Amino acid sequence: MGKLLIVGTVAFDAIETPFGKTDKILGGAATFIGLAASQFDLDSAIVSVVGDDFPQEYLDLLSSKNIDISAIEIVKGGKTFYWKGKYHNDLNSRDTLATELNVLANFSPVVPHNFKNAEVVMLGNLHPSVQKSVIEQMETKPRLIVLDTMNFWMDNALEELLDVIKHVDVITINDEEARQLTKEYSLVKAAAAIHKLGPKYVVIKKGEHGALLFKDENVFFAPALPLEEVFDPTGAGDTFAGGFAGYLAESKNISFNNMKSAIIHGSNLASFCVEKFGTERMKNLERKEVTKRLMQFKELTQFDIELQ
Amino acid sequence: MGKLLIVGTVAFDAIETPFGKTDKILGGAATFIGLAASQFDLDSAIVSVVGDDFPQEYLDLLSSKNIDISAIEIVKGGKTFYWKGKYHNDLNSRDTLATELNVLANFSPVVPHNFKNAEVVMLGNLHPSVQKSVIEQMETKPRLIVLDTMNFWMDNALEELLDVIKHVDVITINDEEARQLTKEYSLVKAAAAIHKLGPKYVVIKKGEHGALLFKDENVFFAPALPLEEVFDPTGAGDTFAGGFAGYLAESKNISFNNMKSAIIHGSNLASFCVEKFGTERMKNLERKEVTKRLMQFKELTQFDIELQ
Repeated sequence: MGKLLIVGTVAFDAIETPFGKTDKILGGAATFIGLAASQFDLDSAIVSVVGDDFPQEYLDLLSSKNIDISAIEIVKGGKTFYWKGKYHNDLNSRDTLATELNVLANFSPVVPHNFKNAEVVMLGNLHPSVQKSVIEQMETKPRLIVLDTMNFWMDNALEELLDVIKHVDVITINDEEARQLTKEYSLVKAAAAIHKLGPKYVVIKKGEHGALLFKDENVFFAPALPLEEVFDPTGAGDTFAGGFAGYLAESKNISFNNMKSAIIHGSNLASFCVEKFGTERMKNLERKEVTKRLMQFKELTQFDIELQ
Repeated sequence: MGKLLIVGTVAFDAIETPFGKTDKILGGAATFIGLAASQFDLDSAIVSVVGDDFPQEYLDLLSSKNIDISAIEIVKGGKTFYWKGKYHNDLNSRDTLATELNVLANFSPVVPHNFKNAEVVMLGNLHPSVQKSVIEQMETKPRLIVLDTMNFWMDNALEELLDVIKHVDVITINDEEARQLTKEYSLVKAAAAIHKLGPKYVVIKKGEHGALLFKDENVFFAPALPLEEVFDPTGAGDTFAGGFAGYLAESKNISFNNMKSAIIHGSNLASFCVEKFGTERMKNLERKEVTKRLMQFKELTQFDIELQ
């Protein structure tokens, strides 16, 4: 079975959308990545850190999805990373109301021994030095290292970000961040510029407008599934990345054609994530629902034109 | 051979983009629709009006594409409709700097006798009463009536617009306009609301973010081709509509599956239109370039996932 190593935050989120608001609920990049990847047949582990204020039931939820949580460090007397945000009416933009790093401030990840040979490493959004430290702990060269990042690190740790980017195979980044990183407005040109920084594959996430996969001259596009209502976008990008990495870890095939399928699987899972607050939709998501919606993705995008 | 009747403006445009500006050049909805539709094997005619300031070479260009221009009225002493606009840096929004209706103010369209039995009628953006008058002149019920419109008519002639919409099979409308017309933010809900106004098929154009086709519960999506540079978006929506209607007129098949192909043909042709100012790219576009780019569309969107 394929092995997937996941690094990222396990956290509390408090979310406000036009449809309602939550108290502190389960969140964090590694949480969403792990839940998405648990839809595939693979061994996965999360490397992260929480405080001893973190409920056991959240840890149990991750365990119940066959995710190895032994490398989620629990800091005695520490407080778990906390993010609070409010989405605007169009759900495409949000204000961060609070960010408390807490135990994340001194996080030093330790890759579990039995995942030092993982074929796929998914580096969720975190300080680039933490991401780099995980790469350095691998004993065998992973078949694929996927990195997600955000504008915060471009503003505050650009040098470290450019350093870790050199060592990854795939980067997932949103459209505005790709433009910020490269100073190119055209996403085609931005992707070409990012290729030169290291990653062979560049995935540009456009939220409700889908995602693009670039490799040299090859481009693939997956739309977001048109939904009656997007309820809460929190975690959609991480769910996308988790579906992408999870599918590749399971299928052990990193051809461009299989990457296309991985992008579709990621988009498909993200379409569930946004239907409810936080992890609510993902934690009970059944395989048959996923398969049914994949069929909708086919109907949404596949056409039949004969070319001479 | 299929017959396509096109109604819309034939006009002068003056365009400014971040890449340059033009004096008065050939423009107008019917012009772009006609040039796009000329990529297909069909008989087409344009019903429109110009002043006697309109250059013969522009009329000759349309004729050279096998478009019947006998119903383009030339008003002696009249001035041709003129639009001047300036695009913002992102090319997604623009300011209208001048709109001179001129001969369009008193336009009373006359459908040529031999097109009163056209199978497909493409009503380009115009006053809804003018669009309605064309429908009323048809002697046989067209297989398909396609209507394009814009927010200007929602603001200034809503009653007439709602009246003509009742009589068409397909409406093409952009995302913001669909939201304005229906007061629904979700495009899925907006499309459902527009279905109730009459059209069986609703096409929502999202510019660089592609286009959606809705029919009852069925949805199809075509992306815009990711380009290194979009030079001038003027006419892209009309080119899309012209490719869509032209393909359907040629193939004489209005199944949902064939509509999908029509959406792809429209998106494909629009991807050329934006590469140069005005009609410059479309007027010399060769069939083999079109076919080659259709192949790119397949590579961009088609994937292979086996579902159990």
